[in-house]
Amino acid sequence: MLFTELPTPQVLVDRTRLLANLDRMQADADAHRVRLRPHAKTHKIPDVARWQMDRGAVGICCAKIGEAEVFADAGIEDIRLPYPVNPRNASRLLALMDRCRVSIIVDHPAVARGWSEVMRAAGRSLDVLIKVDVGSHRCGIDPAPPAGLSFVRLVSGLPGLRLRGLLSHAGHGYGAESERALAAVARDEAEMLRGLGDEARRDGISIEEISVGATPTARFSVAEPGVTELRPGTYAYFDRTQVAFGAARLDDCALTVLAMVVSKPTPDRIVLDCGSKTLTNDPPHGYDHPRGFGAVFANLDATSIAADLAIDRLSEEHAVVTVASGSTPLEPGDLVRVLPNHVCPVSNLVDCVRLIEGRQVMETMTVAARGKIA
Amino acid sequence: MLFTELPTPQVLVDRTRLLANLDRMQADADAHRVRLRPHAKTHKIPDVARWQMDRGAVGICCAKIGEAEVFADAGIEDIRLPYPVNPRNASRLLALMDRCRVSIIVDHPAVARGWSEVMRAAGRSLDVLIKVDVGSHRCGIDPAPPAGLSFVRLVSGLPGLRLRGLLSHAGHGYGAESERALAAVARDEAEMLRGLGDEARRDGISIEEISVGATPTARFSVAEPGVTELRPGTYAYFDRTQVAFGAARLDDCALTVLAMVVSKPTPDRIVLDCGSKTLTNDPPHGYDHPRGFGAVFANLDATSIAADLAIDRLSEEHAVVTVASGSTPLEPGDLVRVLPNHVCPVSNLVDCVRLIEGRQVMETMTVAARGKIA
Repeated sequence: MLFTELPTPQVLVDRTRLLANLDRMQADADAHRVRLRPHAKTHKIPDVARWQMDRGAVGICCAKIGEAEVFADAGIEDIRLPYPVNPRNASRLLALMDRCRVSIIVDHPAVARGWSEVMRAAGRSLDVLIKVDVGSHRCGIDPAPPAGLSFVRLVSGLPGLRLRGLLSHAGHGYGAESERALAAVARDEAEMLRGLGDEARRDGISIEEISVGATPTARFSVAEPGVTELRPGTYAYFDRTQVAFGAARLDDCALTVLAMVVSKPTPDRIVLDCGSKTLTNDPPHGYDHPRGFGAVFANLDATSIAADLAIDRLSEEHAVVTVASGSTPLEPGDLVRVLPNHVCPVSNLVDCVRLIEGRQVMETMTVAARGKIA
Repeated sequence: MLFTELPTPQVLVDRTRLLANLDRMQADADAHRVRLRPHAKTHKIPDVARWQMDRGAVGICCAKIGEAEVFADAGIEDIRLPYPVNPRNASRLLALMDRCRVSIIVDHPAVARGWSEVMRAAGRSLDVLIKVDVGSHRCGIDPAPPAGLSFVRLVSGLPGLRLRGLLSHAGHGYGAESERALAAVARDEAEMLRGLGDEARRDGISIEEISVGATPTARFSVAEPGVTELRPGTYAYFDRTQVAFGAARLDDCALTVLAMVVSKPTPDRIVLDCGSKTLTNDPPHGYDHPRGFGAVFANLDATSIAADLAIDRLSEEHAVVTVASGSTPLEPGDLVRVLPNHVCPVSNLVDCVRLIEGRQVMETMTVAARGKIA
């Protein structure tokens, strides 16, 4: 079947591009002797996780226990939750630990103590990493002395917890205004983690892992001394934001949305059937401040962007496209492909994606971990 | 079971509030002898649609054929798609017409002609309404003479199409800066539709229906002469935006998100486990320009808002809450309820919602039409 025969909108995943992305990130990690542990939130598909493992990934990351349960069911044996999982979820986490190797992060004394009590009571031991705030100011401890080391000491001394190392996510990299600024984010991140790690080691505390995430900074982080693990997610598919940060070229982007023109109220305005229920309202990021809710490709082969078309507004089922030049040959019934700003939440919206080669649909893949918010 | 025993996040729907909302809108429509045809996109749940029908709704609206298929399966007999469905979907629409009464909208000559050909070839007749752009500049024809009437004439003359009337959605009402401005949107909308309807009738064309949508304007539209049908959706649950437009009081809001505090990196910052995968990135709207990605309730009974807490940032699994006063008693493990900015896309993210009475979970309802984008 050709993808042009599918009802629209549809989420398409180009197999050649996807596998090349998986190969390239793994090769980069291998070349630097850094372990790759992809975040599965981008694809949420067990088969794709398996392809990542087959290439040398040491395990995967999931955001929530519900996601991890899906991948454990599918036989993935090493799952890290770089999320401050709360001890209220003790019974589910213990059950997950029966099925695969599990690690979580901690960034709060009461939570660390809570997990320690859970594990002691269960006669178990839980691998934990300390989440360090390297500048995104979301979760994580402040690594500065003396608070940083004091938290590391606390966790390392808690029975039932096995402190593996330090972990961060440089989410603030998405605010970088230049390649130089982005590289600095990665450098500073590694420096902060190394600093705290060295302090801890001088204190006699074992810090085996220094784990960093984020696709835009991955190419810089991989060469940073001390970094033992990369946790990028988006690199599997890439997206408009990653292209805007120089992390990918346009023809690396594996996930696209097939959409149809459904209305053309004026010569300079068309409406596509991919609204926020497909593209999400996630804004674009990047050095050049891209505009709109995705980019429309100039052709169905998804090799160049139609510079003339801007997705200016989304409602749930409509994408309102402004035609800068004032007119377009596109008419209702015509198909286009759209590059989302951010692919991870797009995966989360659909029950399946279509794996394609050229215009051929090879396979329908169920997004098995979709919607696992808890 | 109490909702406090559920894993978080969870989408809760308060049954008492929901049923009161359904009753009130139906009573208002009945009092004005206007037909109510709720948009089911808000809940996407067949049982809720049935409750709307039981109260007197003449049918429902769905956005896409995929949604309509779910409700037709559940026995809903009259479904309107106020969406410019394209004739490329002919086979699915014809199959749907075999199972329930279907109507769609048209706003483009080629699309109207396309449907006419489909219906002639199938020996069928399709109910259509003409979508009129009353100011939101998304889809719809310009009603101004001579183009407006000329399109009405075209459609009324096409074999296989049965022109039922005119239909609009005053989406631009969500930009109103005052109650007066919002009322003006509803008045202007009705005036435009009446104007075109009268022109058409003078031309001998039957215009039986004047159908308007949108929850914020519904209370004004219902009293407008000539309006025969209301198509609000959000009124079933209401949300933060509807409260900000005076369409609901806080304690009318039936859908809330139960979330847990998972991190407290500083005294003035907590992190909840409901990110954009639960709340969506939909911005708030309203006269007073509300800020943030939802409002945190001050208590688990969802009766007042914690004015001190602002959901300033979302990532997929994190809601970063700033504490204006500089400190909060909330600690990791504590539960809160959150009022989303916009409930419809929240329904679209979850496989089920929990119907509650007080803190008691009465029923788990499957969001059967979730994710039906095509």
